[in-house]
Amino acid sequence: MTAYVIGVGKTRFGPTSKTMPQLAQEAILDALSDADLAPEGVDAIVVANFLGGPNERQLHLNSVIAGIFPGLNLPSWRTEAACASGGVAVHQAVLALSRYQTVLVVGVERMSSVVGLELTRNIGMAGDVIFDQLEGLNFPANYALLARTHAARYGTTLRDLELVSLKNHANANLNPKAHFYLKKVRQADIDAGPPVASPLRLYDCCPVSDGAAAAVVSSRDRGARSVRIMGSAVSSDVISLAHRASLTGFAAARDAAKRAYEEAGVQPSDVDVAEVHDCFTIAEVVAMEDLGFAAPGEATVLIREGETNIGGRIPVNPGGGLKAGGHAIGATGVSQVCELVKQLRGEAGDYQVADARVGLAHNVGGVGGTCAVHLLGGR
Amino acid sequence: MTAYVIGVGKTRFGPTSKTMPQLAQEAILDALSDADLAPEGVDAIVVANFLGGPNERQLHLNSVIAGIFPGLNLPSWRTEAACASGGVAVHQAVLALSRYQTVLVVGVERMSSVVGLELTRNIGMAGDVIFDQLEGLNFPANYALLARTHAARYGTTLRDLELVSLKNHANANLNPKAHFYLKKVRQADIDAGPPVASPLRLYDCCPVSDGAAAAVVSSRDRGARSVRIMGSAVSSDVISLAHRASLTGFAAARDAAKRAYEEAGVQPSDVDVAEVHDCFTIAEVVAMEDLGFAAPGEATVLIREGETNIGGRIPVNPGGGLKAGGHAIGATGVSQVCELVKQLRGEAGDYQVADARVGLAHNVGGVGGTCAVHLLGGR
Repeated sequence: MTAYVIGVGKTRFGPTSKTMPQLAQEAILDALSDADLAPEGVDAIVVANFLGGPNERQLHLNSVIAGIFPGLNLPSWRTEAACASGGVAVHQAVLALSRYQTVLVVGVERMSSVVGLELTRNIGMAGDVIFDQLEGLNFPANYALLARTHAARYGTTLRDLELVSLKNHANANLNPKAHFYLKKVRQADIDAGPPVASPLRLYDCCPVSDGAAAAVVSSRDRGARSVRIMGSAVSSDVISLAHRASLTGFAAARDAAKRAYEEAGVQPSDVDVAEVHDCFTIAEVVAMEDLGFAAPGEATVLIREGETNIGGRIPVNPGGGLKAGGHAIGATGVSQVCELVKQLRGEAGDYQVADARVGLAHNVGGVGGTCAVHLLGGR
Repeated sequence: MTAYVIGVGKTRFGPTSKTMPQLAQEAILDALSDADLAPEGVDAIVVANFLGGPNERQLHLNSVIAGIFPGLNLPSWRTEAACASGGVAVHQAVLALSRYQTVLVVGVERMSSVVGLELTRNIGMAGDVIFDQLEGLNFPANYALLARTHAARYGTTLRDLELVSLKNHANANLNPKAHFYLKKVRQADIDAGPPVASPLRLYDCCPVSDGAAAAVVSSRDRGARSVRIMGSAVSSDVISLAHRASLTGFAAARDAAKRAYEEAGVQPSDVDVAEVHDCFTIAEVVAMEDLGFAAPGEATVLIREGETNIGGRIPVNPGGGLKAGGHAIGATGVSQVCELVKQLRGEAGDYQVADARVGLAHNVGGVGGTCAVHLLGGR
């Protein structure tokens, strides 16, 4: 069953007073309009959301969102796989095409309603309650362990991480829907940033964002503006770094990438543009290696040579990524697909990658406990 | 793609000191053993869970459960649709057979770690945060509104509700895995029960339970012990009663039932045994009407005549249902499928329904915001 993305929509990412249903509705209507589709043309809804319970006291979000279209009585549910919720929801939509012709995927998150330590603790629920949370091993700390291990093994430097941050902030300045649109970040800002979890400093970390993104996935090819889903894969791993054999990459990412490449019949060198899960700068380095864009330890070569910039050999996160585009957790994996669809249609405006024909989205939950990889385009 | 349940397993429902991963593992190993399948024979895992975040501070539960099988790197995710999480997860497994030959579904919940008002509030997250939660319209209150409306329109009496409670407690006395196994409940106990939300009294309400249930769903027919999934459907509705046209039934249940019957090619009169979502006694009455076992307002006729008892015309909840079998929320929809598989194989022991060939499972989220209906058997 061939799958196509026939419409995409998203809100701006960043703090807002809008509620989750309002954000979701804005992205959904945007996507339906983009698809030139009436709500009656939707056969099922998949909702991606991570912290609706702890942050907003709202579970059963699929039914809340069903209320946007009263009387349709659509099949719907909510999917949660920590920060990979959105990518997993897109995968579910592809699977669901065996029964439903057109599936609406909407990812949504509100982070700004909870602040400080409470928010850190809620995000920490993506880690094991015993092996991670009770040990104080929150997500900056987890990724700091990755950064230290990667540095020790491959000589990755703070300067490499800074280059990722500078690039993604520069890209976000070209994307009006990015959390840090029009926020100039220079080396001096990075140098002045406080440590978060050594070696990671403030500008190595993505922000927490409110936002929503939607994609209409269909088995119907609707012509030139439809973008084919060439490959779709999800994989998972044990949740805690404590139980992993390696701390310089994610087995779930490598496994999902392998499956997606095989299904799509393409290789890493065929990818023209990538949206990768750069929740921390080190995560972008690790992603490039897990996805085969560089051999283990060699992503930094491409980064130093500017090959991951817009216009480089393999542009990574041209819309700003999570780092500067923002991370509205449940929405992120869907937003990555939205960004790729814009690139592959040639509708990405100031951050368009020239001649983009194959795009890859890489969405990670926790510290590699779940990973979704999608390949789009190919025509 | 024909779907079969090739193995089932469940823990006893009820309070326990076991953790969610321990409960899940017990049910999974039970189901794999029942299916005579090694973990390597599983291609994907769907986890159903409702309150892991608010009750247990554990989200990303699919990755925790992936840790039971380190190194397999299976596709996995968590599904949440309030109390319909389990039924929705079974539906997702059916959809996923388009890509994965064998899908393990596991539902799990821990309720006993949180008590009193905090637990009531957490369960309340299945209702709209504005229209229900802030109004104090918790779930007993919602179902009390249904009971009052049903009574006013159709003359349903307290005695009718008591008959449901007495039947399900009597059935649970025959099921060693039921929450209230060996707990004798007599009319005098019901009479002495305090009001919860008038007219509903204590024995009109299901307990909150810890527990897990697992089912192995496959496209491979493995012979006589495989049970075919004849029909699988999910539907949803606006979340709040405040926005519903009718308070005497659930449109999502009627819609899901219609789709499932059509797919299975059977009618309500063909159903030999039903597991319905009796979170409150009135819910069983409403379910029977939504599922077409009785015309609107006439379920009570069957109940009064004993036709829903084991040995009656349409035995309902022979294992005790949610009311007395227990309600480990995320596990419930999967447990219903486990119970039906036992009935259809003739392995239900003391509560076996004679010559059961077609079984129906009906799993409701919130107050009818989501509903999953499955039809099993047929050979």
